[in-house]
Amino acid sequence: MDVWDTYVMTLHSPRMLHLAAFVAAGPVSGHHGGWRHDAADRGLLSLQYYQRIAQILEAAKFDLVFLPDILGVPDRLGNSLDSQLRHGALGALRLDPMVVLSVMAASTDHLGLAATLSTTYHEPYLLARALATLDHLSGGRAAWNIVTSFQEAEARNFGQRDLPDRAERYERADEFVEVVCKLWDSWRDDALVLDPVAPLFADPAKVTPIDHRGKWFDVRGPLNVSRSPQGRPVFLQAGASSRGRDFAARWADVVFVTPASQASAWEFYRDLKQRAACHGRDPEDIRILPALNPIVGETTRDAEEKRAALDRLAAPEAGLSTLSYHLGIDLSIYPQDEVLPLLDVPGVDGHYREVAELSHSAGLSLSEIGARYGRGSARVVVGSASDIADRIEAWFTAGAADGFMLQPAYLPGALEDFVRLVVPELRKRGLFRTEYEFPTLRGQLGIARPVA
Amino acid sequence: MDVWDTYVMTLHSPRMLHLAAFVAAGPVSGHHGGWRHDAADRGLLSLQYYQRIAQILEAAKFDLVFLPDILGVPDRLGNSLDSQLRHGALGALRLDPMVVLSVMAASTDHLGLAATLSTTYHEPYLLARALATLDHLSGGRAAWNIVTSFQEAEARNFGQRDLPDRAERYERADEFVEVVCKLWDSWRDDALVLDPVAPLFADPAKVTPIDHRGKWFDVRGPLNVSRSPQGRPVFLQAGASSRGRDFAARWADVVFVTPASQASAWEFYRDLKQRAACHGRDPEDIRILPALNPIVGETTRDAEEKRAALDRLAAPEAGLSTLSYHLGIDLSIYPQDEVLPLLDVPGVDGHYREVAELSHSAGLSLSEIGARYGRGSARVVVGSASDIADRIEAWFTAGAADGFMLQPAYLPGALEDFVRLVVPELRKRGLFRTEYEFPTLRGQLGIARPVA
Repeated sequence: MDVWDTYVMTLHSPRMLHLAAFVAAGPVSGHHGGWRHDAADRGLLSLQYYQRIAQILEAAKFDLVFLPDILGVPDRLGNSLDSQLRHGALGALRLDPMVVLSVMAASTDHLGLAATLSTTYHEPYLLARALATLDHLSGGRAAWNIVTSFQEAEARNFGQRDLPDRAERYERADEFVEVVCKLWDSWRDDALVLDPVAPLFADPAKVTPIDHRGKWFDVRGPLNVSRSPQGRPVFLQAGASSRGRDFAARWADVVFVTPASQASAWEFYRDLKQRAACHGRDPEDIRILPALNPIVGETTRDAEEKRAALDRLAAPEAGLSTLSYHLGIDLSIYPQDEVLPLLDVPGVDGHYREVAELSHSAGLSLSEIGARYGRGSARVVVGSASDIADRIEAWFTAGAADGFMLQPAYLPGALEDFVRLVVPELRKRGLFRTEYEFPTLRGQLGIARPVA
Repeated sequence: MDVWDTYVMTLHSPRMLHLAAFVAAGPVSGHHGGWRHDAADRGLLSLQYYQRIAQILEAAKFDLVFLPDILGVPDRLGNSLDSQLRHGALGALRLDPMVVLSVMAASTDHLGLAATLSTTYHEPYLLARALATLDHLSGGRAAWNIVTSFQEAEARNFGQRDLPDRAERYERADEFVEVVCKLWDSWRDDALVLDPVAPLFADPAKVTPIDHRGKWFDVRGPLNVSRSPQGRPVFLQAGASSRGRDFAARWADVVFVTPASQASAWEFYRDLKQRAACHGRDPEDIRILPALNPIVGETTRDAEEKRAALDRLAAPEAGLSTLSYHLGIDLSIYPQDEVLPLLDVPGVDGHYREVAELSHSAGLSLSEIGARYGRGSARVVVGSASDIADRIEAWFTAGAADGFMLQPAYLPGALEDFVRLVVPELRKRGLFRTEYEFPTLRGQLGIARPVA
């Protein structure tokens, strides 16, 4: 009996879905035409916009809101910012995720708050403190999506002419995570006493410098924030390359993936949980959330019409521009009417696999792939509440997912549709919670609090 | 007629005071015994604590809340963390200021929000984006207290064995501010179009890379956030050394200072405004705010009793520990019963001037100076509302201050006392606003919005 069989046998029943929402603090979350939609709120720069989204998610009892990030305006397509800015593509504008999540924390009580923060451009001490602060102020709801960053457009905003290669970035990321974990553990749970009578503010015997000296970082510590409700924030990761999967298997509590089919999702799920076991972890301690871009209608036909209307709003060049950014390759130099060439991409391996599978299976040309990519790619599911719930249930029960990362086509409308129509259907089937039952995000996810 | 005389002649009448509150996201804002006070809220790690303080300040029409920062637990006194942690001294704990200000932004509409962020340890691109985000979400209320950091305890949390000297830190700071200003100016004010019909998200002709290549930073740009309501955040600075004053005179909109007497405040005020004129700036564009630690009672006697009770709560060692931190010198190695020796301090020149003046004028021993420092030093003013207002008015009309940075002895009680008793008295004298009249912090301060 291999590790996988052992794991399958330990699955408790009934499992419950975990639901996350992918919300960019910028124009595109699930569809490049979304910001142009009649019902889209274009108040991307207002506090109320983000607080409203958070409140919708909390009212529906979602596990968490996930803020992706980009540290620059991509200029990969044709070596120009033009396509991103003009069309409002994925990286045209992106607010600071910690500021946005902090205002979301202020308008919610249970929703998990996940920030994408780069191990290549952040300082471990500042990152550890910011997340510990968010975890304290939110009462144990902070999460960190660990990324290594892959864009030259980003590197050049941080004094680097050449992006370090993937192996080097992940090596640095491993040490980065080690350092921040040491910082989060530098105060024992009971170190902060706050006794005005003794008096004793904090017990010096329970606060210890970390004295980390490594290849990439020298950090003395201790952190100047006491240990937070979750001990550490929840770790998210989306690595799809072999190196990325190993990183996720070692560190991640939640893994986000963009498979092009149920078969790829199942393969990924099985592979990642096996890798986790190889790292000595319990595979059940990892939640795997494939992306899902739902377009929900009152009926299947209504949903198809919605999709067609949305698709008319997305310029094909916008999708090609974002795909170029994700792959780290200028796709304008290839023949646009031929299939996607075989490439060794410096960018996101998961997105390359996704479009390569799509290109091969459907025989799509590069320009068609670009257009399709801007409309949500293979992640799009269109239908009635029952259609969408069927799809979710199928993947979930097949062992291809522990839940889903929803990418709404426009905000807040597409989220509201999902919440109003699909969530009740999932509840009817006993697949999704009706109340929050735990005070922290770790509790909601069913993941243990780490010991310092 | 020199620059100063010209300046004095241009003062419009009536001037109005500017009021800021120094609120540490940690145990000490104005008094080392504060956290132990019966009426102190010790919920330092809760969101409600910070939102309540912000609401008190906004109800009183304060210009801004100011969050100081320290990037490590100081260990200067006796090379140990013990005194800071045990007593809850200045650097025992400090939450991330951007997270705290973001939750304050969510519970207020007018209050300015000032974050202390270091040019030595932050990345310009991340800092520029975080402040632009806060400025957008708060509707034009972000401010940046520019510091260069001076502690080895901090340097060692960022991979540095030796702290760069003051000249080098300020040289880097000058370039840092140049870079972030270029980033904030990289989108013209009307670059973000958000037109769903045209369609045009942003006009590529109005977004430009900055291509900065300097001694300290190479940053390509553009920022991936559109220009914010204030154009740039308001700049605060507290440099007291000659180099620090020049830096403030070049960049600052608001200067925070800790003079030991009205005479020193007057000298500083005159000197700084003259230096600003030498940089080609209008001296009236700078607001100078000396620190003031008010202990207000219904009567003078009541206030004196409050002060005595507070002073009993502050361990002398706590103050000595914080003074050691501020000066960057281990004061445990000097005779404790003699006057403060003449020192060339690597730390904050302004705090050294403050205690040296106090030590010399009052003949205090080092241990007395330490104790006094922990209780608020020469910044403390004790009395009835009328006493405190007299002191404020005297400095203000003498040209020693444009307003004050209040350092409350404990939170939120000492702020509430000031707001309830002193603010009405200042209004009766026509010295302080009764309503916010401008939508942005720049407007409240009477400072022009910079052109991109």
